[in-house]
Amino acid sequence: MGSLDPSLISGLPVFEGLSPTDLDRIVGQARSLRIARDQPVFEQEQEAHSFFLLLDGHVRVVKSTPDGQEVTVRYISPGELMGIAHALGRTTYPANAMAAVDCVALAWPSRLWPAFAADYPSFGANTYKVVGSRLQEAHSRVIELATEQVEQRVAHALLKLVNQAGKKTEEGILIDFPITRQNIAEMTGTTLFTVSRLLSAWEDLNFVKGGRQKVTVVAPHQLLLIAEGRARKS
Amino acid sequence: MGSLDPSLISGLPVFEGLSPTDLDRIVGQARSLRIARDQPVFEQEQEAHSFFLLLDGHVRVVKSTPDGQEVTVRYISPGELMGIAHALGRTTYPANAMAAVDCVALAWPSRLWPAFAADYPSFGANTYKVVGSRLQEAHSRVIELATEQVEQRVAHALLKLVNQAGKKTEEGILIDFPITRQNIAEMTGTTLFTVSRLLSAWEDLNFVKGGRQKVTVVAPHQLLLIAEGRARKS
Repeated sequence: MGSLDPSLISGLPVFEGLSPTDLDRIVGQARSLRIARDQPVFEQEQEAHSFFLLLDGHVRVVKSTPDGQEVTVRYISPGELMGIAHALGRTTYPANAMAAVDCVALAWPSRLWPAFAADYPSFGANTYKVVGSRLQEAHSRVIELATEQVEQRVAHALLKLVNQAGKKTEEGILIDFPITRQNIAEMTGTTLFTVSRLLSAWEDLNFVKGGRQKVTVVAPHQLLLIAEGRARKS
Repeated sequence: MGSLDPSLISGLPVFEGLSPTDLDRIVGQARSLRIARDQPVFEQEQEAHSFFLLLDGHVRVVKSTPDGQEVTVRYISPGELMGIAHALGRTTYPANAMAAVDCVALAWPSRLWPAFAADYPSFGANTYKVVGSRLQEAHSRVIELATEQVEQRVAHALLKLVNQAGKKTEEGILIDFPITRQNIAEMTGTTLFTVSRLLSAWEDLNFVKGGRQKVTVVAPHQLLLIAEGRARKS
């Protein structure tokens, strides 16, 4: 059995302020795992046995409604914690997490969470900052959904993905994981039909370039104008 | 100058697990204040000089968008913290807080927040639980806005207010603070016109009873059926 090296987590914001010895101890209690694309990392309402740190890949966090509709809450990027149910004061996972691509993660038993927070106060504080920023992000989503037109919301969602997982290519900025029009619909509270209509119009204007499970943003400034409701109505 | 008694805060969930001496010290550093109806407790983007505990009344937390639209994020009830910017990792208030009725609150300088969290770990942990539950609440709002019909969202909003501030009367359960149709529109991402149309229809069915800045829920079970999308379409 190989051992995990603290360099896996040093330099990540959530572990900022910890000594090399602390990092060593924390990594020493983790197990590493690989999650294949489209496989679950954890499932909504299941007992939160572990919390995770994503090392590589992208994970889609999806809430299911009682009547089977799905809403994509956020995407997790490398370096981010996920499944930190205990930091939210709950014992079950609040959502489903699915690997959007092949992923590598570290996992710790959830029972270590209170011990880590007590032994390494800066880790506790950093984690709570994560929760705080996710609360603000969720409120931004509420505001977008409550006040924005659907084209603004879709433009916002693409810009958010570009920020989080954009990769410069010759054509523009590629969202660097497979994303379908249905995924975008589930991020923006609209239908597949509406997303398809908008993306086709934006492709015609050369603002974006689509492909199978692929979106490249060619003209981010134009999307920003749309997101802010300042674009000329076409 | 009178002194504040620890009985003001003992028994509140957020101070659970603290000794009488701890409570005494915490209350000893608070100032009490009265906020008249429709006056601000704090304002969005202003420096978060204090955090607050609402002792009496109801406070509406509203986010303003850059183009001047307003979204009601939540109502704060007695016993709840508000303005805990530092627990969210920020130094300014994330929203406006307005007294919905005459209110009484305790305030502490924000610089005491990290000291309280360090000296009274259970207070810190309880506050983070508050943030965690607000995150879950915000995600529920996202899901409602993304997947529900407007009548479901308005029914959900009324039921939430009944839960939080319902008062039994002869007519039904009164939402125990002044609430306008515009307020409900700002909670549910819809227009004043739509809220008026829905409430009028529900008044005709005797599900609710309206009045000037007053809503009484007469038939909560009917509203629940509507909220869950199980009502017969009228």
